[in-house]
Amino acid sequence: MTNIKVFSGSSNLPLAKKITEQLGITLGEVTISRQQSGEIYVSYDESLRNCDVFLVQSLSHPVNEHLVELLIMMDAAKRASAKTINIVMPYYGYARQERKSAPREPISAKMVADVLTTAGANRIITIDLHADPIQGFFEITVDHLTALDTIIDYLRSKNIVNPVVVSPDAGRATVAEKLAGLIDCPFAIMIKNRPAHNQSEITHIIGEVEGMTPIIIEDLIDTGSTIVNVVEALKKRGAHNAYICATHGLFSGNAVQKLDHPNIEEIVITDTINHEGEYTDKFVVLPMSPLIGTAIKIITEGGSIATLFKS
Amino acid sequence: MTNIKVFSGSSNLPLAKKITEQLGITLGEVTISRQQSGEIYVSYDESLRNCDVFLVQSLSHPVNEHLVELLIMMDAAKRASAKTINIVMPYYGYARQERKSAPREPISAKMVADVLTTAGANRIITIDLHADPIQGFFEITVDHLTALDTIIDYLRSKNIVNPVVVSPDAGRATVAEKLAGLIDCPFAIMIKNRPAHNQSEITHIIGEVEGMTPIIIEDLIDTGSTIVNVVEALKKRGAHNAYICATHGLFSGNAVQKLDHPNIEEIVITDTINHEGEYTDKFVVLPMSPLIGTAIKIITEGGSIATLFKS
Amino acid sequence: MTNIKVFSGSSNLPLAKKITEQLGITLGEVTISRQQSGEIYVSYDESLRNCDVFLVQSLSHPVNEHLVELLIMMDAAKRASAKTINIVMPYYGYARQERKSAPREPISAKMVADVLTTAGANRIITIDLHADPIQGFFEITVDHLTALDTIIDYLRSKNIVNPVVVSPDAGRATVAEKLAGLIDCPFAIMIKNRPAHNQSEITHIIGEVEGMTPIIIEDLIDTGSTIVNVVEALKKRGAHNAYICATHGLFSGNAVQKLDHPNIEEIVITDTINHEGEYTDKFVVLPMSPLIGTAIKIITEGGSIATLFKS
Amino acid sequence: MTNIKVFSGSSNLPLAKKITEQLGITLGEVTISRQQSGEIYVSYDESLRNCDVFLVQSLSHPVNEHLVELLIMMDAAKRASAKTINIVMPYYGYARQERKSAPREPISAKMVADVLTTAGANRIITIDLHADPIQGFFEITVDHLTALDTIIDYLRSKNIVNPVVVSPDAGRATVAEKLAGLIDCPFAIMIKNRPAHNQSEITHIIGEVEGMTPIIIEDLIDTGSTIVNVVEALKKRGAHNAYICATHGLFSGNAVQKLDHPNIEEIVITDTINHEGEYTDKFVVLPMSPLIGTAIKIITEGGSIATLFKS
Amino acid sequence: MTNIKVFSGSSNLPLAKKITEQLGITLGEVTISRQQSGEIYVSYDESLRNCDVFLVQSLSHPVNEHLVELLIMMDAAKRASAKTINIVMPYYGYARQERKSAPREPISAKMVADVLTTAGANRIITIDLHADPIQGFFEITVDHLTALDTIIDYLRSKNIVNPVVVSPDAGRATVAEKLAGLIDCPFAIMIKNRPAHNQSEITHIIGEVEGMTPIIIEDLIDTGSTIVNVVEALKKRGAHNAYICATHGLFSGNAVQKLDHPNIEEIVITDTINHEGEYTDKFVVLPMSPLIGTAIKIITEGGSIATLFKS
Amino acid sequence: MTNIKVFSGSSNLPLAKKITEQLGITLGEVTISRQQSGEIYVSYDESLRNCDVFLVQSLSHPVNEHLVELLIMMDAAKRASAKTINIVMPYYGYARQERKSAPREPISAKMVADVLTTAGANRIITIDLHADPIQGFFEITVDHLTALDTIIDYLRSKNIVNPVVVSPDAGRATVAEKLAGLIDCPFAIMIKNRPAHNQSEITHIIGEVEGMTPIIIEDLIDTGSTIVNVVEALKKRGAHNAYICATHGLFSGNAVQKLDHPNIEEIVITDTINHEGEYTDKFVVLPMSPLIGTAIKIITEGGSIATLFKS
Repeated sequence: MTNIKVFSGSSNLPLAKKITEQLGITLGEVTISRQQSGEIYVSYDESLRNCDVFLVQSLSHPVNEHLVELLIMMDAAKRASAKTINIVMPYYGYARQERKSAPREPISAKMVADVLTTAGANRIITIDLHADPIQGFFEITVDHLTALDTIIDYLRSKNIVNPVVVSPDAGRATVAEKLAGLIDCPFAIMIKNRPAHNQSEITHIIGEVEGMTPIIIEDLIDTGSTIVNVVEALKKRGAHNAYICATHGLFSGNAVQKLDHPNIEEIVITDTINHEGEYTDKFVVLPMSPLIGTAIKIITEGGSIATLFKS
Repeated sequence: MTNIKVFSGSSNLPLAKKITEQLGITLGEVTISRQQSGEIYVSYDESLRNCDVFLVQSLSHPVNEHLVELLIMMDAAKRASAKTINIVMPYYGYARQERKSAPREPISAKMVADVLTTAGANRIITIDLHADPIQGFFEITVDHLTALDTIIDYLRSKNIVNPVVVSPDAGRATVAEKLAGLIDCPFAIMIKNRPAHNQSEITHIIGEVEGMTPIIIEDLIDTGSTIVNVVEALKKRGAHNAYICATHGLFSGNAVQKLDHPNIEEIVITDTINHEGEYTDKFVVLPMSPLIGTAIKIITEGGSIATLFKS
Repeated sequence: MTNIKVFSGSSNLPLAKKITEQLGITLGEVTISRQQSGEIYVSYDESLRNCDVFLVQSLSHPVNEHLVELLIMMDAAKRASAKTINIVMPYYGYARQERKSAPREPISAKMVADVLTTAGANRIITIDLHADPIQGFFEITVDHLTALDTIIDYLRSKNIVNPVVVSPDAGRATVAEKLAGLIDCPFAIMIKNRPAHNQSEITHIIGEVEGMTPIIIEDLIDTGSTIVNVVEALKKRGAHNAYICATHGLFSGNAVQKLDHPNIEEIVITDTINHEGEYTDKFVVLPMSPLIGTAIKIITEGGSIATLFKS
Repeated sequence: MTNIKVFSGSSNLPLAKKITEQLGITLGEVTISRQQSGEIYVSYDESLRNCDVFLVQSLSHPVNEHLVELLIMMDAAKRASAKTINIVMPYYGYARQERKSAPREPISAKMVADVLTTAGANRIITIDLHADPIQGFFEITVDHLTALDTIIDYLRSKNIVNPVVVSPDAGRATVAEKLAGLIDCPFAIMIKNRPAHNQSEITHIIGEVEGMTPIIIEDLIDTGSTIVNVVEALKKRGAHNAYICATHGLFSGNAVQKLDHPNIEEIVITDTINHEGEYTDKFVVLPMSPLIGTAIKIITEGGSIATLFKS
Repeated sequence: MTNIKVFSGSSNLPLAKKITEQLGITLGEVTISRQQSGEIYVSYDESLRNCDVFLVQSLSHPVNEHLVELLIMMDAAKRASAKTINIVMPYYGYARQERKSAPREPISAKMVADVLTTAGANRIITIDLHADPIQGFFEITVDHLTALDTIIDYLRSKNIVNPVVVSPDAGRATVAEKLAGLIDCPFAIMIKNRPAHNQSEITHIIGEVEGMTPIIIEDLIDTGSTIVNVVEALKKRGAHNAYICATHGLFSGNAVQKLDHPNIEEIVITDTINHEGEYTDKFVVLPMSPLIGTAIKIITEGGSIATLFKS
Repeated sequence: MTNIKVFSGSSNLPLAKKITEQLGITLGEVTISRQQSGEIYVSYDESLRNCDVFLVQSLSHPVNEHLVELLIMMDAAKRASAKTINIVMPYYGYARQERKSAPREPISAKMVADVLTTAGANRIITIDLHADPIQGFFEITVDHLTALDTIIDYLRSKNIVNPVVVSPDAGRATVAEKLAGLIDCPFAIMIKNRPAHNQSEITHIIGEVEGMTPIIIEDLIDTGSTIVNVVEALKKRGAHNAYICATHGLFSGNAVQKLDHPNIEEIVITDTINHEGEYTDKFVVLPMSPLIGTAIKIITEGGSIATLFKS
């Protein structure tokens, strides 16, 4: 892998290191500093001429700093004659602003795609986009990986007794149904129903949960408030403590504390966003470096990314 | 409106005419012919120099013919010094291929957006896209209208007794919930559940439907098979004949015949796709020309498209 | 040739197969289907990551279907990380609309070039464009091959007695003159002259044809009507049965039947457009696969395309 | 016409002045100077903010100087907030390199189109392009005018006795035929025929010329050598002195002297290329300013350019 | 000014308000909020369809937040059918990274120009760019204003006795010389000279400063350290307290405190960067709203920006 | 180096030959001719399919001819399937018009960058740009080399007694200071000072020059007038004859004669611009082929261009 260089932005250095270990190479040296004025300065400390450069950066908090830092890293790489510039963006921020839900709103997820392309990206590798059509926002190649297989493997290894997959709302029903099929268990849906006029809004749960162990799957967890509401509602209906699974743990604000909750058995998360040293014992962090490392190998040496999808 | 010219492609001449009536202008003269070789020839029969040109074309069957015809119309308009080229595409075809659901698939909805832009479009006016993020596929301005208000107004005028909005699957639950709120009635969801391992798949209906009149709302109806299954399942559960509502009536194959079904009370559709002379008495066609005409007025004379959204 | 993959669109599967035989590889597997709505669905059944992909598609009847199909194939190939996307378009449709001959006409040949480029083409290989400047419509590389050498080789092998190359109109005179030189015979031109005011228009033939065997060369034959007129006029002037040569046999409508004409000795055509099973005994089909296969080899392995031009 | 400004490059100041007279405005003030190093310096001496700017420049000798000068004028106009930049290029140079006639040649006419667009052109107005498909080389609008009507009007006014339109080669036969129709006279073609193997090449003239007055029409006259050969051949065959007509008089080298030829009656030319003070009495210069001025009026005030085409 | 709307980003609301007062219009309503995840949400609260929209944003601290906020504002404005999007960027951040001074550095000032253009800017209005060639980084129109005239007017009004313009280093000598000419006084240059080998570096001042009042002019003041060094060196050489002038007061870190220095008489700054409530009595803030407001008027109503430059 | 081909434009054939010698390859064969009309015709006489093509062309006098010639060479190379097109432009003309110093001026250096990119350049290798930010004018990669190390090596080898680096104006002070440090000697600055109102302008020299040998360093010498003024002023102040160094010797007009001046000891120049046979004995020409050749090797075979910078 003589012509591959991996550099890390500020957002997730531990993951970048693990990816290079996976690839059997050393993480590239780059100086990234911030001036007192807030401007970012970038300078690569080794040649990347004619190299396939991979820049690892998640658009996690502080998302705008991380975005601009990445743009500057790309500009410097482009001007330093990198052969290709590949963004490894485990978590794609602004993905939830992927449509106009009201007039005069932006589609920020598209703006991000556009500026990444403008700054010189040739390819983006990302995991579990909040909405699939974001792939179509790009002219450049998107390798869209999923943590679902990794999460399922973990859940299977736990041999959970009497499990039930619970979708926290109707919108996630399809994913929940798919997961239930893969781990061979029933599933339930939580619904905010309005049975008739002027009645107050109440929450239904479709399917059995009493005496069962709920498994909740999300693409991302932000403030954690929804999850807390869901597990408390499940407890009330006689469910055991829940397993919470998500690809991306944003854990904004005091989410980590909120989620260290008595009704939660485990929070199964990946390392797309770095929270090293912040987690409590309830958090299980599944590494994404094997998946990303293999993808980089396939991209540079050949093969089919499709082999990375089991389900 | 001296500088506005509206021309019609082959897909929906009646709608184009109604739009010009709405605007109080005459439909522009354009020659569109097909050679024996299958090639399309286009020639405008009146000057469109410095005009805001609106080309009305739905990507309905035969979708590829209509797409290429539109591309050629745009090329001719561009070369004839049109000031702006605005596509009025009441139905945006290929919208269901807006994401990769398997490796090595296209995102055809993006390809369509790209070639429309390449051929010279400055703006696209469309109605009820199958997926909202398609807006983000465009660099040019998208005016995304909805037929929902028109449909609701119609339903209200019917004074349906004991109505219930039924979502034919979990994916449409959000829209159904919204509609139920707007016409002030309960709603129900049809779910293909799998309660436990090795049980055969059965269909649940969440919510009461017995003795009620189901209203089903879709963005588009293609072959009609799903609708037939749904209304028969509702009938079995004691529901009255259903009202079927959709913005876009593709009605591929013999869908019109299939939908002339004893369990259906009415099929409420709009004229985004032209089926003049094909419909039976069960079909109610709501005109989109008032909506589109007003949008064109706002676009060219000023005002806010937001005023077109009641709900 | 481990990194080359050739896939075929719907327009000319036999030619695509022969090209892969020429290259000693297997034709790539791709699923192309049409929905009831008329939409085309494409999915590649094998990996094309990092491959030089060649897509074989002629813009023959139904030309618009074939164009959109190709655009979708390209979009899917691009998103599947093809290294390069090369269009093998033996017959480039819409080439006769390469200029505005009247106001407010399109230049459809340019629009086609633009949308091919937009959809992701890196190169186009084509044969005997109707007009050379179409090469200039492309930003991407054009490898413009010619069937003329193949046709001349065939004509020489026939040892035609007393041949005369006849140009069916003044516009083709240069090509006819060139061909006459190459096969070492005289040539004649058919002219629609108007010798003086108020005289009716009559057709002259410049040069001797009586007792000779006319050879007529065209880039394409569409409906065949012109050819029939020409051979009948030649017969009247005492010529023998004619040899009709053309690169592209569109044969729109009932052209094949029309050309099975008593005054025609042979119709020498290539397989740029597929009419397998339709031809009568008068048709001689020269294969283009050796030419295209060699071009692909040169493109991927090196060498000069100029070596493919004998004349 | 308050927002229109016309500026002239160095190639044809007299024409630019006449265009502004036609429009009833004053020619814009611009400083164009050349440094000792050969670099061109441009500075507009009046504001062109929000103006529709028309830059008059022919790509005549020295063509490369004139091209770069125009590019610099456009850059300055763009940065000075011109609303639109319209190139009035009466003679489009490099138009004869519009196709590859041998491998590894450029298509310089396309390169010119591309750099004009890059430098900021919104529109190009040109006259009698050497090849029509060059229109398709542009993404921007092309207003392609013709001097043919002006030339015909002049010829009619001469009441030439016994005229015959002569095409100097087969390639111009179509134009000659058209002209003959318009001025109601017979036409003839000069052909370099090769009647049989090993015979030396001789020149035929198809049609009667003896005792008649030949009219020869070209799009451009470069060195004048071909014309001299043609008129001498016509003289030998008993024709009277010829009228030579062309839109563009390049008159490279000593062409003006060569064309002051005893067998030529008149050279009818336009002022697309400036040769003020060089012409002899045999030259008749038809002004293009009425045509261009009217086109500019139509472009900015509305109307149809099609009205400028009589024939 | 019915079609002009001015909206403010978060960086400099007071300036935006003053600009609208200058224009006699109301500041546009826009909602800008930050999610807990750090993502910015933007929504315009009034229609901007067909309006010339001016977005006021300085790239001041926190520069990356302000940049991304502006990109999102532009995306929303573009999708809301703004006629033109004009960025009013009084201070252009990252301007000091306008060249590569070492290998593998970025040119961040170009990256900023590129992403602004990508996100939809049609024009940028800015003041005293750190380096003039940054204008050339843009394809879109740049209206480059200067605060120099305003600063000079202020200095003249002070009737400073015995003034001397001092350039703090050789790089600013040209500007200092120009200013000295305009306010009619001598000038001096501070130089870090190295007269011979192995001598330690000392600072020279070229020109008389003893008993004079130094005026120092900068384009921007960042941390203030250089200025403190300069005024102390001047004091040592017998100069009076200095006047410090700059267009852009970044005042990073504790610069405001540092500059409240006994050797400084006044710090004359503009309001391109907002520090309302932070300044001490030594700071004189000159308003840029008259300049910007007039520029906006000229841009939208006509006239020449050149009239804004006195010197 | 089997896939590298170097071709030379007309501006500097000797340098191109030396570069190929440095690389151990033969200069590529290309036909470049000029028509009587002034149009340039280009045709490559050997295949460059899949080759990394390097085109050597300085934008020296006649700069516009050389620019257009290069554009045409690039167009032909692009259409001949060159893998990459790399411009070796030792001297980048129009670099002094890199900013607007007055309203309504062009930024011609940017226009040049744009048209080079449009015509197909993938990379530009250049030496000592007049202004560094020009690098930022390009989207493509710029390898910006410097002749400074070569010049310094030469100066060191001369063992000049009592040297002093003299900056001819304040603007070059930084470069002069750098050079003085590198060759370990003092430096001086020539300043056009205006000590007080109404005094006439006189020239100061900051630093000792009497009895010393001045070394003057410029990026380019155009007409030579400034240099003559400077050396005469130095002589008056008792300096010895000067060494004049510059990367680019434009030597417009009779500069070579002017610089054969009694107060000049040597003019040290490089061969970025060809003046073979014009120089007198005072001129020392340092070859740039080793620098460029090594850069080409690094670009194609790998390594870091940074190793080419010693200082």
